[in-house]
Amino acid sequence: MTSPGPGRPRHTGPLRPGATGREQILDAAAELFTTHGYARTSTRAIAEAVGIRQASLYHHFRTKDDVLEALLTSTVTPTLPVAHAVLRVPAGDAEHAAARLYALALHDGRELCRTRWNLGALYLLPELRAPRFVPFQTARERLRQCYVRAGADVVARTGGPSQAGDLAFRLVESLVNLRADGRATADSPAQVAEGCVRLACWSGDVTPVARSGEEMLRDISAALLVPAG
Amino acid sequence: MTSPGPGRPRHTGPLRPGATGREQILDAAAELFTTHGYARTSTRAIAEAVGIRQASLYHHFRTKDDVLEALLTSTVTPTLPVAHAVLRVPAGDAEHAAARLYALALHDGRELCRTRWNLGALYLLPELRAPRFVPFQTARERLRQCYVRAGADVVARTGGPSQAGDLAFRLVESLVNLRADGRATADSPAQVAEGCVRLACWSGDVTPVARSGEEMLRDISAALLVPAG
Repeated sequence: MTSPGPGRPRHTGPLRPGATGREQILDAAAELFTTHGYARTSTRAIAEAVGIRQASLYHHFRTKDDVLEALLTSTVTPTLPVAHAVLRVPAGDAEHAAARLYALALHDGRELCRTRWNLGALYLLPELRAPRFVPFQTARERLRQCYVRAGADVVARTGGPSQAGDLAFRLVESLVNLRADGRATADSPAQVAEGCVRLACWSGDVTPVARSGEEMLRDISAALLVPAG
Repeated sequence: MTSPGPGRPRHTGPLRPGATGREQILDAAAELFTTHGYARTSTRAIAEAVGIRQASLYHHFRTKDDVLEALLTSTVTPTLPVAHAVLRVPAGDAEHAAARLYALALHDGRELCRTRWNLGALYLLPELRAPRFVPFQTARERLRQCYVRAGADVVARTGGPSQAGDLAFRLVESLVNLRADGRATADSPAQVAEGCVRLACWSGDVTPVARSGEEMLRDISAALLVPAG
């Protein structure tokens, strides 16, 4: 296509959002993996969707599995420092403990909904059982443990069931299914976070819990932006 | 392999569980789709896993999509009559309404956990967006609507959030993820059903709700076994 017809603007900018080649590759791969399927997508197809040669893709990623791992990891790893910071806030009474669980669920849920492509839809790929993906599964398990701990601190005060934290983790991940069904809205992460608090048997008003949870997140985000030392 | 070595028993029975050829095909396909992936599985591989010729498979199913649809439909369609029967039970007070939601979630959750292969892991396949799968998606949406109605009847009495029924539907479907993570136990469906009731802001003791919900299911199962007329 060296000579596009009149009235047809020549493509000049990058085909993909992303500041770097790596980010553009990840965006293209995320689209193809979630819409065509992982098995059906070749590295050649990814390179074409970015508008680069396959050799340039290999400059950034050795294999298609490496691309998948980078995408999966991006859905969990950035949330971990926030989750750990939430758990460092003293739980105090039931309301504070509930606010921590709310804050964790709200942040994680927003991250799952924020991405351009619904990457969580790749969590159930059979390919993810390969040893190659143990690092991702380990990071996801670390996040699940944060929910288990935050949940345990609530149910210690409400008398709820011991699996409340795990159920909260599952409920937040179900935002992936809500998105896939075209039913996620801007309110979904907060609704799910409220649900998490209910799962831990918080039976009071959720409004102060939500307010305190959002405040906690704002403080944590501000603190994490300040370089240590 | 006409002459297996000594001590190696000759295979005589069917390779697959299932009373009929159709059931054996579905079992083999379910295994291959959930462990190798849908795109990576050919009808030839399914036929081989059953121990039949590909032509015999085509006697039962025209295409691989037809096999997938039969599997997906089997995860939802048998639950619909139970869900509708649950909704025909008068909701009465908050406890009865909660027991209906519990019964629906418990039955559906048990069905999702009962299958030999974790078929719900196929729900997020990009292939399912094709018009071919509209009948399955419609059946699943009908089941979701049952949760929405059962949830609405609880929150009308507890003052819970309007999305409680939808969240309950999502929480039950998350048993698929629990199974995929190797964390589902015999207690998981009941724990999830209890969680559904909490999501609808039932703040009292769950024990009577669970007992009444289980009783409801027993009555419904008995009634559905009796032929009409």
